[in-house]
Amino acid sequence: MTAFDDLMAFQRQTEALSSVAERLGWDQETVMPRGAVEQRSEEMAAIETLLHERRTDPRLGEWLASAQPRSQTDARTIELIARDYGRASRIPARLATELARLTSLAQSVWADARAADAPDDFLPVLDQVLMLKREEAAALADGGDLYDALLDDYEPGMTGARIASLFDAMRPRLVALRENILGAENQPAALTGHFPQETQLRLARACATAFGYDWTRGRLDLAVHPFSSGCWQDSRITTRVVETDPFNCLYSTIHEVGHSSYELGIDDDYAFTPLGRGVSMGVHESQSRIYENQMGRGRAFSGWLFQRMSDAFGGLNIPDADAFHATVNRVTPGFIRTEADEVQYNLHIMLRFDLERDLISGRLDSEDLLEAWNARFLKDFGVAVDRPANGLLQDVHWAVGLFGYFPTYALGNVYAGCLHDSLRQAVPDLDTSLAQGDASPAVEWLRENIQRHGGALPPRQLMENATGQPITPEPLLTYLEIKFGEIYGL
Amino acid sequence: MTAFDDLMAFQRQTEALSSVAERLGWDQETVMPRGAVEQRSEEMAAIETLLHERRTDPRLGEWLASAQPRSQTDARTIELIARDYGRASRIPARLATELARLTSLAQSVWADARAADAPDDFLPVLDQVLMLKREEAAALADGGDLYDALLDDYEPGMTGARIASLFDAMRPRLVALRENILGAENQPAALTGHFPQETQLRLARACATAFGYDWTRGRLDLAVHPFSSGCWQDSRITTRVVETDPFNCLYSTIHEVGHSSYELGIDDDYAFTPLGRGVSMGVHESQSRIYENQMGRGRAFSGWLFQRMSDAFGGLNIPDADAFHATVNRVTPGFIRTEADEVQYNLHIMLRFDLERDLISGRLDSEDLLEAWNARFLKDFGVAVDRPANGLLQDVHWAVGLFGYFPTYALGNVYAGCLHDSLRQAVPDLDTSLAQGDASPAVEWLRENIQRHGGALPPRQLMENATGQPITPEPLLTYLEIKFGEIYGL
Repeated sequence: MTAFDDLMAFQRQTEALSSVAERLGWDQETVMPRGAVEQRSEEMAAIETLLHERRTDPRLGEWLASAQPRSQTDARTIELIARDYGRASRIPARLATELARLTSLAQSVWADARAADAPDDFLPVLDQVLMLKREEAAALADGGDLYDALLDDYEPGMTGARIASLFDAMRPRLVALRENILGAENQPAALTGHFPQETQLRLARACATAFGYDWTRGRLDLAVHPFSSGCWQDSRITTRVVETDPFNCLYSTIHEVGHSSYELGIDDDYAFTPLGRGVSMGVHESQSRIYENQMGRGRAFSGWLFQRMSDAFGGLNIPDADAFHATVNRVTPGFIRTEADEVQYNLHIMLRFDLERDLISGRLDSEDLLEAWNARFLKDFGVAVDRPANGLLQDVHWAVGLFGYFPTYALGNVYAGCLHDSLRQAVPDLDTSLAQGDASPAVEWLRENIQRHGGALPPRQLMENATGQPITPEPLLTYLEIKFGEIYGL
Repeated sequence: MTAFDDLMAFQRQTEALSSVAERLGWDQETVMPRGAVEQRSEEMAAIETLLHERRTDPRLGEWLASAQPRSQTDARTIELIARDYGRASRIPARLATELARLTSLAQSVWADARAADAPDDFLPVLDQVLMLKREEAAALADGGDLYDALLDDYEPGMTGARIASLFDAMRPRLVALRENILGAENQPAALTGHFPQETQLRLARACATAFGYDWTRGRLDLAVHPFSSGCWQDSRITTRVVETDPFNCLYSTIHEVGHSSYELGIDDDYAFTPLGRGVSMGVHESQSRIYENQMGRGRAFSGWLFQRMSDAFGGLNIPDADAFHATVNRVTPGFIRTEADEVQYNLHIMLRFDLERDLISGRLDSEDLLEAWNARFLKDFGVAVDRPANGLLQDVHWAVGLFGYFPTYALGNVYAGCLHDSLRQAVPDLDTSLAQGDASPAVEWLRENIQRHGGALPPRQLMENATGQPITPEPLLTYLEIKFGEIYGL
């Protein structure tokens, strides 16, 4: 056994345990009896403690120092293990424990504060979280930029400055598009009616199949907040059902199929190695978004869906497939990020990105956060936040210490825009398949150019290889302007 | 931190991991996608490796040497940890690895041999398993009886000699009862018809509720072989559905409710300690059997079930509740243990007990096993085994190294007989409740006298405390002779 072999054997076991922890999380959100909370929390703590011990195990340092790569894959594997070991080792055990304790508390404080619409109940604990996150960032940054050190955990190699420049290029065009849309004369009708759960779930399964979901390595269940979970041979998706709004269930399903298909599409040889998972949050989101939006909400696929839904529900209040396409892409004013359409979604992210970057750098303090949020929302969305639960209190992310995570959502949209351009060039007749409820030509292209690589290539190189170009927001913006221009007759 | 505190903290984490492994097993048998076998096997191996390391961790020896119990509960806890540590430490690592490898292989060899009805394909690998089990028994027995050393793993404190004397007292009366029943003039009708899955599952849920199953800490799913799984706040049950035989689903459910209720009934203070699980396989089976048989197949409860089934399925081919009670308890000749009725079941166990005891001691070799099985079956059941798949090849237990496990099934029946006597004295009007589909008075008595104790008392003391008497097969035999005497007019 060489040092590399020892390292890989140890890592393989760690990856397997980590996969088990993820599976327990799935269980908790889908099938666990409601009385089992305390037991599950102790089970999770036991596994997380073991995982933390393994990630900071001094033997890792020794193996990494003497491991000899025999291939580029070996070298990249060593690089990723070293990266995680370095990050884990730089965070003092005391800080890790305090962060775990405090964010667990802050999550329930946040939930209560949101329910009571009382930001003052939340801001003091958020301030404590922020202090610890600044400390963590300082430990990780090693003299560099604090925000970049946190962002690097979710989008390796990306910097706050690059994100800011992407977003600055996007904001004015999105704000203008939003204004034009909301001022347009013809507004699409909303879908109305009662849509029974069983029928929605049947259609959700048909949508997942249309997007090539591998049912032998996955399953669909209900959850309060839809998510996908797992890798390699077992990546499951969840959805939710609102019986007045079938799009919620169907497009959540397609979105999660994008995430799971990425994991299931990774080369089998990478399983249970650091190359065996999606390479970044942004690339992950690019897959879920291109499935959901560029394809799922496109005219071709929505035409197929219109027919399926009309058949399944015995007619809709929408007259034809063109009107249905407009309904699917309806833009309305709103405060909530998770309910936003393709045009407004990224504006929600930009607001959060600027605020959290200032919070981490110290340019903004948590006591001024509420005012800053409300002022910024008014500026970008042209309407005042009506209550904190619809503003600052809407997201759980900061409460649980996720600073640097938000921009990866918008980055996923930017990536998806670039990939969509290349995909359309590579598969010019894609709409013919999509109109028949068959996304397989697109899925094959994405698998070949993105998914199969797993963590083998850094995000930027992966995206540039796939698209043959540097990543810019131009394709996304052009796509949005053309698509919504047509729908709204701009 | 005292040595006892260190010991308990370590043990608590081990128990939590062990619970996670059990939950993964549940997942695999109920909801796991079929393509995930290889991944799950690696996940299980990772956890089992960790568990083995923890169970033989040298620190356990140090803590055990200096731990000071502060109560009887502490002392019992230390005793149980020391017992497991002692057993785990006496088995050489090489032997443990070989056994794991060989039994995994033997299980698939057995499955193929059973499908092909080819005992010669199976006996050579069984012989290898047997050699390793003899070696394991010798390591554990430390000069004592080999079979007792294996039995002790499933029924601590029990010996082969005591089992043999119990069984010798039972066999002639069971054989005679069986002959009388099969020779009786009036044979109960079989239930016939088609019983849709959804209706069976609805009734199964009603039966579980009747027996007090706590749905906030459990759930019911389908599995190929029904089982119960988990402890403390999360003990789930499974059942199967055969659409021509609803008793299969309903009585499997009640049986598994017995197992799960035992786990869920244990004192919360014992959770994730060695006292937090059922104390032995025999005591476990006593709970599942008394739920399923003494109560579930009794006249009072079956009267309630007759009404519920008649309503649910729109009439049955059985005229009234008395006839239904006879149908539920119908005795027919058969080769298969798992399909056996209350009268014949223990005869199947006795045959296996005598053979496996001789196999372990060396009095019987695997090459003579087929002949020995067939001869013994003819003697006890009065009919020749028609093919090995219906004889020696029917059970998986020996293939996977479970020697010493079979007698706990019959011991459970003996225990259930004793408990039932005491229960009826303590709750004389139990049938009034059971006739209304409410087993709660019995469940309360069993929880108080058996279930809540978990592993706090050794099996024998637990049973004798609960019944106020030494354990004998007399109550079970008398119960069977009276019950079947009435049904068959003997």
